[in-house]
Amino acid sequence: MHMTGVVAVLPTPFRAGGDVDLPSLARLVDLVVAAGVRGVAVLGTAGEASRLSDSERLAVVDRVMAQVAGRVPVCVDTSADGVRTCLEFSRQVKASGAAAAIISPPRAPRLGVESIVNHYRTVAEAIDLPIVVQDAPSQCGVSMDAALLVRIAVDVPAARTIRLEDPPTSMRVARILAAAGGTRVTVFGGQGGLFLIEDLLAGAAGVFSAFAYPDVLVRVVSLFREGRVDEAVRTFHAAVPLMRFENQEGMGTAVRKEMLRLRGIFSDASTRAPGLMLDEHARVAIERLTIGWNRKSEVRS
Amino acid sequence: MHMTGVVAVLPTPFRAGGDVDLPSLARLVDLVVAAGVRGVAVLGTAGEASRLSDSERLAVVDRVMAQVAGRVPVCVDTSADGVRTCLEFSRQVKASGAAAAIISPPRAPRLGVESIVNHYRTVAEAIDLPIVVQDAPSQCGVSMDAALLVRIAVDVPAARTIRLEDPPTSMRVARILAAAGGTRVTVFGGQGGLFLIEDLLAGAAGVFSAFAYPDVLVRVVSLFREGRVDEAVRTFHAAVPLMRFENQEGMGTAVRKEMLRLRGIFSDASTRAPGLMLDEHARVAIERLTIGWNRKSEVRS
Amino acid sequence: MHMTGVVAVLPTPFRAGGDVDLPSLARLVDLVVAAGVRGVAVLGTAGEASRLSDSERLAVVDRVMAQVAGRVPVCVDTSADGVRTCLEFSRQVKASGAAAAIISPPRAPRLGVESIVNHYRTVAEAIDLPIVVQDAPSQCGVSMDAALLVRIAVDVPAARTIRLEDPPTSMRVARILAAAGGTRVTVFGGQGGLFLIEDLLAGAAGVFSAFAYPDVLVRVVSLFREGRVDEAVRTFHAAVPLMRFENQEGMGTAVRKEMLRLRGIFSDASTRAPGLMLDEHARVAIERLTIGWNRKSEVRS
Amino acid sequence: MHMTGVVAVLPTPFRAGGDVDLPSLARLVDLVVAAGVRGVAVLGTAGEASRLSDSERLAVVDRVMAQVAGRVPVCVDTSADGVRTCLEFSRQVKASGAAAAIISPPRAPRLGVESIVNHYRTVAEAIDLPIVVQDAPSQCGVSMDAALLVRIAVDVPAARTIRLEDPPTSMRVARILAAAGGTRVTVFGGQGGLFLIEDLLAGAAGVFSAFAYPDVLVRVVSLFREGRVDEAVRTFHAAVPLMRFENQEGMGTAVRKEMLRLRGIFSDASTRAPGLMLDEHARVAIERLTIGWNRKSEVRS
Repeated sequence: MHMTGVVAVLPTPFRAGGDVDLPSLARLVDLVVAAGVRGVAVLGTAGEASRLSDSERLAVVDRVMAQVAGRVPVCVDTSADGVRTCLEFSRQVKASGAAAAIISPPRAPRLGVESIVNHYRTVAEAIDLPIVVQDAPSQCGVSMDAALLVRIAVDVPAARTIRLEDPPTSMRVARILAAAGGTRVTVFGGQGGLFLIEDLLAGAAGVFSAFAYPDVLVRVVSLFREGRVDEAVRTFHAAVPLMRFENQEGMGTAVRKEMLRLRGIFSDASTRAPGLMLDEHARVAIERLTIGWNRKSEVRS
Repeated sequence: MHMTGVVAVLPTPFRAGGDVDLPSLARLVDLVVAAGVRGVAVLGTAGEASRLSDSERLAVVDRVMAQVAGRVPVCVDTSADGVRTCLEFSRQVKASGAAAAIISPPRAPRLGVESIVNHYRTVAEAIDLPIVVQDAPSQCGVSMDAALLVRIAVDVPAARTIRLEDPPTSMRVARILAAAGGTRVTVFGGQGGLFLIEDLLAGAAGVFSAFAYPDVLVRVVSLFREGRVDEAVRTFHAAVPLMRFENQEGMGTAVRKEMLRLRGIFSDASTRAPGLMLDEHARVAIERLTIGWNRKSEVRS
Repeated sequence: MHMTGVVAVLPTPFRAGGDVDLPSLARLVDLVVAAGVRGVAVLGTAGEASRLSDSERLAVVDRVMAQVAGRVPVCVDTSADGVRTCLEFSRQVKASGAAAAIISPPRAPRLGVESIVNHYRTVAEAIDLPIVVQDAPSQCGVSMDAALLVRIAVDVPAARTIRLEDPPTSMRVARILAAAGGTRVTVFGGQGGLFLIEDLLAGAAGVFSAFAYPDVLVRVVSLFREGRVDEAVRTFHAAVPLMRFENQEGMGTAVRKEMLRLRGIFSDASTRAPGLMLDEHARVAIERLTIGWNRKSEVRS
Repeated sequence: MHMTGVVAVLPTPFRAGGDVDLPSLARLVDLVVAAGVRGVAVLGTAGEASRLSDSERLAVVDRVMAQVAGRVPVCVDTSADGVRTCLEFSRQVKASGAAAAIISPPRAPRLGVESIVNHYRTVAEAIDLPIVVQDAPSQCGVSMDAALLVRIAVDVPAARTIRLEDPPTSMRVARILAAAGGTRVTVFGGQGGLFLIEDLLAGAAGVFSAFAYPDVLVRVVSLFREGRVDEAVRTFHAAVPLMRFENQEGMGTAVRKEMLRLRGIFSDASTRAPGLMLDEHARVAIERLTIGWNRKSEVRS
């Protein structure tokens, strides 16, 4: 697997009653693949994985695999509190056809550097599957600095793709690439894509993002790759007001689900409790931003 | 369910290779029931539940139910990050015969008071099963003060049993009972029983503890209930050096598993990674403490 | 004090050697007052207050007071780990002429609701000075929900101005105003102003922001107040790409200091260790954004 | 400085009105020196330093220096959120005659390994004063593993004394000594002394403790050093029930102040708000434990 560009992170849709909504998920897959993303990522925080049962998680993975049907690689977040459950789920998703496992360190108090490295090594030695090392302290309580990420990359060759969900990403991308020296690591930004241009300028290979308009991110990356940086910046800046609102900590999943509902992709915008529910103000703000954005898009095209 | 006294919290034993070891678990059930505990609690942090798969969790519950065979009530920790998964698992354990669900607030950033109350209310309204409200901030990241615990008790009648795993327990027991006023709440101490006497003096109904020698706790509680407080204190103090070592944060599960192995109950003392592994110093310390304790016990009996 | 509109939060400038740079601070005061802000806020996290000595903090306050010279009210962050030090510092800043004290809850493990209310009550009873209640969990480790903020407002009449530094601010503004009922609370957004429009639409009285271009925020608020919401939105959106970069968690102070250096206000952009130092990529990104922004501003004017 | 054995950590006494009570502090100094401690440590969490003003901190240091009058070395906790304030305070305490500065990493989000090493290096290069590297995550939010502590010791020769306040200390002592290889580090346990025997067996040089009966700790260490390990264990175990209650997280400072008041050393037992206040139950528990302890001591002597 050598993935670059935009990887679409998929929120998990629910029906009004709370069941996983697989048809909405299938529509989302088609939307993002049509938008030109180079990969798809399922489960994880944005996918509310911790509020799903083991069997629901597998159902989500299987439906996404079926719908993607080999058009792009599929990464699955298999992070777990224990090495063994992480390993077992990674094995299952590999069997389902996943191209990579996205793995955060396990949640545990006082987790030392050795335990973290060991977590990745154990999974890598047991399964032949590339690992995306995810730095997302809000998910697992552990922050990994450049030295540790490079240490993992050196010790565990399967784990040389890095996804950064903790600010400030652009400076961290640069620092990791500098620290990596001869070891080839691939670093992706995150944070919904809100720092995409700066991350690319710092050397990022692309971005993992659940932004409801992935086509913009795809356009920004391709303009950038063609050397048309000013156009890339302009395209990016036009989307920033929308992205900013979508990417609010503690609210992001609810906002992007509402956007996907407004786009006709999701039949319902709800998150599972205790996820935040949007109020009327938030829904009006989203509608206003979305209408403004659609108008700008029409003008452009 | 009106439980009082000592409730034995059961660590989940693993075989050397890492599989759940149900025969060892069955021996532990027999040990604690023979020791005179008034209830049994499974899964949760002490049971390494977050490192088990959904199906392993059910297997543990079923084995414990079968082995207890109605001799004492069985409480199951069904805490989960989402209301729905908590509810579903609670329904399953009720079907398995559990007497109560032990529930911590869900892990989620910025969880407000209303979301916490709502979590308990939603489960209680959906299932007819008593709830043990667990204050264990190291498990869920949320600390509940006396006012909130009483608010839950008032609003959710099924949730009037409280288990405190956050210090200082004795002062908190007194504060909760004072704040509860007319609402009858039952408060249990935790922390392995290391403050049992003080908790009882403050009005605790008993203790949830995974201490490897539950018979001592049972004896302390019965001496105390008979008004023989000085004897209760002496019995308790004799066990404190051992309990102290067993109850070390970040090490407790490993220590008590080793003690249970030394007692011939567990066939292996391992925890699942990234759980801490004992070193030679720790094992020697445990042996020294255990031998000392057994000698004292012989003298007494 | 009834403050509304934009309150400029002042970073504390340092000379290359690390000393507090009072002349740069004076220039910043003149910049923000000329920009039309309705108040000034000093110290706190953005002012790196926790890296200053007690006497440096007083020197900063005095220099700001002298330079503002009564043109706008000055608020001082007097948050402290103890009630007594908070109270003493509040007394000192009142004597220096401050219009209000900005106070976060004290940092302490397991701080209950009563201790928080008590903190505000004790200060308010001892000193006749309005209090801005600050919800900034990253500063103090405590998150205050709407019910608690309203409880403080009801119990402590001096503490009815609220500053929200924790997302999602717009939804929280609406929730607090709804919960306040008859009690008149004034709620300000924060987060550098990155959600200013949404906060205003939800009922915010204004914003506390350290954004290096406060004139934009002032223009947005006045357009909004005149009912020219669409123009306000356009003006705001034009600034969002810049604000977004400035407001990065863990990097904001360094970025805005560099912007103020580029504007000729600060003679040096350094933060005090262990504050983050910008790398070359970050500096280039800032310059690019700033140049783009200045160009747009010229076009507009 | 090559300190070993028991270092007495001094709580800061307050008068009923809240002022620092220097005469009580002087009495405490005499008590601990008479008890045979090999060093004294002031300020830090146990000394409620974060609730003192800069000038109060200096007053405490000066009074302790004067009272100790060279009888034992005095260590001062100079931990601060910024390198510069830490350095300045360290310089002041050196001028006052301190033998060492106790320093925790600065409180700051996402503090990487390099920033931590840099913090110690900067202070060490600027001042010729031994540093006690303190691992106390509850104070600073950062946990340091064996590799990092050894890295600091190797890079910063002035910082080769380590104080561990995070469990499980005995295993960590052993791990650090093993990792240190040829670099001579001196490791002290903490946690009030509650794991003194196990820490000594693992190779600890002694203990930093605020236990109100330091003579017991001194006796345990000397019996241990004379090879009379069983006697050391017995002496230690006799004190454990008392130590356990004193060392409760979130309550320790209040308990030991009450014990010192009962011993006639402190004229008042109060902590500064928002420190916990003991209730009647806690005071009765302390009295009961203290009386029991005194009786045992008489029997022994």
